[in-house]
Parts: sequence; structure tokens; C-alpha cells
Amino acid sequence: MKALVYEGARSMVLRDVPNPSPSLGDHLIRVEAVGICGSDMHAYLGHDERRPAPLILGHEAAGVIVGGPRDGDCVTVNPLVTCGTCAACTAGRENLCPDRQIISMPPREGAFAQFVTIPERNLVGVPEGVPLRMAALAEPLAVGWHAARLALATLHPGMERRALILGGGAIGLATSLSLEAMGCPQITISEPAASRRAYLQDRCGQHVTNAPTGHWPLLVDAVGYATTRSAASAHVAPGGVLMHVGLGDNEGGLDVRRMTLQEITFVGTYAYSAQDFRDTAQAIFDGRLGPLDWTETRALEEGADAFADLLAHKVAAPKIVLTPWN
Amino acid sequence: MKALVYEGARSMVLRDVPNPSPSLGDHLIRVEAVGICGSDMHAYLGHDERRPAPLILGHEAAGVIVGGPRDGDCVTVNPLVTCGTCAACTAGRENLCPDRQIISMPPREGAFAQFVTIPERNLVGVPEGVPLRMAALAEPLAVGWHAARLALATLHPGMERRALILGGGAIGLATSLSLEAMGCPQITISEPAASRRAYLQDRCGQHVTNAPTGHWPLLVDAVGYATTRSAASAHVAPGGVLMHVGLGDNEGGLDVRRMTLQEITFVGTYAYSAQDFRDTAQAIFDGRLGPLDWTETRALEEGADAFADLLAHKVAAPKIVLTPWN
Repeated sequence: MKALVYEGARSMVLRDVPNPSPSLGDHLIRVEAVGICGSDMHAYLGHDERRPAPLILGHEAAGVIVGGPRDGDCVTVNPLVTCGTCAACTAGRENLCPDRQIISMPPREGAFAQFVTIPERNLVGVPEGVPLRMAALAEPLAVGWHAARLALATLHPGMERRALILGGGAIGLATSLSLEAMGCPQITISEPAASRRAYLQDRCGQHVTNAPTGHWPLLVDAVGYATTRSAASAHVAPGGVLMHVGLGDNEGGLDVRRMTLQEITFVGTYAYSAQDFRDTAQAIFDGRLGPLDWTETRALEEGADAFADLLAHKVAAPKIVLTPWN
Repeated sequence: MKALVYEGARSMVLRDVPNPSPSLGDHLIRVEAVGICGSDMHAYLGHDERRPAPLILGHEAAGVIVGGPRDGDCVTVNPLVTCGTCAACTAGRENLCPDRQIISMPPREGAFAQFVTIPERNLVGVPEGVPLRMAALAEPLAVGWHAARLALATLHPGMERRALILGGGAIGLATSLSLEAMGCPQITISEPAASRRAYLQDRCGQHVTNAPTGHWPLLVDAVGYATTRSAASAHVAPGGVLMHVGLGDNEGGLDVRRMTLQEITFVGTYAYSAQDFRDTAQAIFDGRLGPLDWTETRALEEGADAFADLLAHKVAAPKIVLTPWN
């Protein structure tokens, strides 16, 4: 099969590699659409020690089951493979499973390829009429869905449902769409890049601003650098909630004294539960997350150029989806 | 009346000052017992810009109403004076009232004195047989009660009720006693000072350790410095809760990457609601917070020495209570 192989910092090469062989309980999936995530970019730059070269990246996939009793079924893929039996898994918090794996990290190859393997329980069937390009968004949207669900559960019932999201990438947008689907009446995305801001406003119907102002009961840092955390901890309202979804850098930025005196709750959020993933897929299928027409589609063969363009900030769309079969 | 007046960094002087005159709606209270708080020490060292000299400090008071229809009633004092009408107050989060005042901060003088004034709604009646020295602990215990209540409400129901508390001062101990009263079955206090550790174990029946080890679903930082936050964010279990009660320094220490990947929730907590204060007082009266015999009582006249001894770490008891009338 053809696969885009990460071979070292800033090196992505299209290669012919052997088709993967599914283990017991796994399905072989013909990948029809696979999104590029910020964490793929992080790995591409050589910054993710969990993803050593050579490796096939990519974990936002939808496709078609090949072989077995469900041969030909269209599916979207939950890339988090968990044990199902630990305390976290049995509490419905599979994202905290100590033995969790994710495709695109060893020992599991990723989905920037024509085929990938994945356990049966990680598949969600896609109804007829839903494009697989759209179904592949279940993964990044589930990250936002999970953050939105925790945010609204954490926010004190006495506070207004008003949210500011820092960062207008796919996760920021996914969190906004999820909050809206959950009934949050007022959401603004703060995004410094003018082209991205215009895209979010004109193509995605988002309310945008170029920098945070005022105080917000709910503040989502969908970037995760010390600079954004500093802004977040300054602009979250007293008694409010700061959701931290990003993995930019490790330390600094939070004004802990203010967070203590003003009783700010900071919630670290990573990935999603299996139920979040299924709920997000259903919300996509029902149209509750909007038309989801804010992706740019490119052939897998042009994947290396896509990474270079993303790095050069030449892409206004919040998401590039690669298609391995055209 | 006699009052202990803070007159500048490390200067506390017993003075004769005019008796305070209660404003409309306020009561005059004859102070019988008043605790020394870490924040009083912070002010004494000249580190609290909210408490400029000259000022009467002290906000952990119990005493007797003087004059009016309740003349002679024994009361403990909630020192937080709030508006009662803002969104925070009407939501039962008076500690977040933007117009909050506290005795010992201008414009309200504190209770290191023979008399203090306070609104009627800030008083909780003390039943016969409960010593006022014990009733004066309602304030610091309410801080721990509030933190414990928020902690258990925030902790995921799928996680064990096991808590580690960093810091064995009055707030750490108050949080431990409150968690125990709320049914938390396993609590350990981590305290580096051997004399304090021995006191907590022998006098207060606490389970103690000299340094944190392992992972804890609930981790309470009752110190609030970068070093304790660093330990806290390392030793809180995946999916757990880090309560931050201390106000040591403003920034640093938190491992934000770990908190994000492991979905740690950080809750800044300050003071208490009016209901927390009443609930804590009732728990004291009912004996649910133990015998509360871990205070050291000294005369107000010896207050300056008490501050000096606290500063020199010569006090093993977690709390010194001053008595203004002996």
C-alpha cells in the first residue's frame, strides 16, 4: 500500500509499504479520509518523543471495512485503544487508561496510508449519505465535545453560559461547535491570525475577536502555551472555569494567586471517552455540529506539501483531510 | 480598649485605642478569643498590600454581644462582610462578592482587640458549654470545610476517596478534619517539620508523612508555593483533583502538560460561603470535628511575642488563640 512515512524531523515521504495484517479482534480498514492534527505537526517537527521515526502518523480516519462479516461497512475510527478492564475504563474514562494506545504511536502504525488496522470496538458505523471526509472529523470533534461536556458540568449553575475560546484551530472550533450543540448561548473565538479569523467568521459562522477582553465564566485554552494560559487566567471570570485542551508547552503562564483568590477551576482535558466519541459521531450524523464544510481536501500523495504549507501558515482552513485513493 | 496594633513590618504594639462604634446594623462584640492566621503573619511581615499599617489585624474571633436585644449572647464571627445582592452572593458564593470586605482589612479593623464590630448576619450563636476558644476556630475550620466540600464534589465518582494534604498548619488540619467529617476514609498529611508532625500525630490523631509519595485521587496543597504545587501536580493521580488553598507565591510549579494529559482538575479555593461557615460552626458544636484541643492559648498582651515565636518556628501547635481579657 501507499503510506506517508515520517522519517525524521521535517521529512515526510510517500512509500510503498506492506499492507498491515490485522491481529485477532482487529479489522482491516481501507482509509478513505484522514485528517492532519496539530500533534502530527508536532511529531513532524521532531518534538514528540512518543512518536519516533520511522513511523506512519495520522489518527483521524474514516474508511471502509475490508473482509469479515462487516465487509464494505463505512466506519469512523476511534483511534484510542484501551484495555476495557482497569478502573479508568470501567468508570467510562478510557482516555485515562494507563495501558492506552493510539494509532500513530508505537506499537500501532497510523492512518496516513491506504489501510490501517483497529479493534472492532473502536469502530462507529457511518450512515449512508454521510461523506467519509465528514465522518473523519469525529476524532478532532470528539476532543472538543469532551472538553465542552466537562466544561458545562464543571461550571457553577449560578454562572452565565458565556464562553471565550483561545485559538481558532480545529480544536477551538470543535469546542465551539460542541458548546453550541449543548446549548451554550454565547461563544466567541479569539484568534490572532486575520486569515483564519476571516475563515471562521465567513465559512463557519463563528463570532470571532483578535484578542481576549473582559471576563468570561468559561474560558477554553485550545492552544496551551504559557502566553495563552496567562491570557486565560487573566480573562476567566471569578468563580469560572478554565479548560486546558492544548499541549503547547509544559509550564508557566497561570496566575495561581488570582486563581486561588477568585476560585478559578482549571480542568486539564485530553482526548475523549468512548461514549464521547460515539456521541460526537451521532451529532455529526444528525447535523448538530453544522455542515462541517471547513476542511480542505488533498491527496495523500501531496501530504508532504500539506505539512509544509501548514508550517508556513499558508492554510486558512482549520483542517486538512488527506485522501489515500485518488 | 486594648488592641494589638500592626505598625509596620515586624512591629506589633499593644495600645490603648478608642472603643469602636458599631454602624447601623452592626453589633459590638466583646472579643473573648481570636486566632492568629497565616495571613496575619503575612501582613506582619509587611507582605500584604491589602493590609497597610497602622491596622488592627485578626479575623478569627468569638465573643459576646454587647448591648441591643441579644446582649450577652455568645457568638462566633464570620469575618467576611458581603453585599448580599450581587450574582455571587445570590448564588451562595459570598466569598466571590466583588464588594467583599473582611475584618482586619481597611475599612474594617480586626479583632486583635477587646472589641470589634460586625453585622448581625455575620454572627452564629454558640450553644452553652462550647468554649469560645473552640468557637473561634470556626473561621479557619470553615476554610478547610469549604475546600473539602468542593473537593469531594469535584472528584469523579469512579475514584477512591483517598486524600493527601500538603502542609500540617491549621488549614491543612482543618481540611483533614472536614474531609473526615464528610466521610473520606483515608487521609494523610505531609508535613516536613518533625515537631509539627509529632504534634499532629500524637495530639490530633492524624496520619502523617514527611514527604509525598505515590499517587492520590485528591491532593490538597495547603501551603501554596511553587515547590508544593510541583509536588502536588506530580502526586495527584490521573483524573484526580488538586485543591489549592494556600497563597504562598503567585506563579510556577504546576506541571501543566501532565495535568492536561492526565486530566487533573485544579480548584482554586478561598475562604467559604456563609452556609459553609454556619455548617462548620454546627459541626464544631456537634463534636464532628473532634475535640479541637490543638490550640495554644496566650494573652493578647503577649501577642507580639506570639508572632515572633511563630516566625521562629517555635510553635508546634497549628494555632495560637489570643485572649484579650486576662
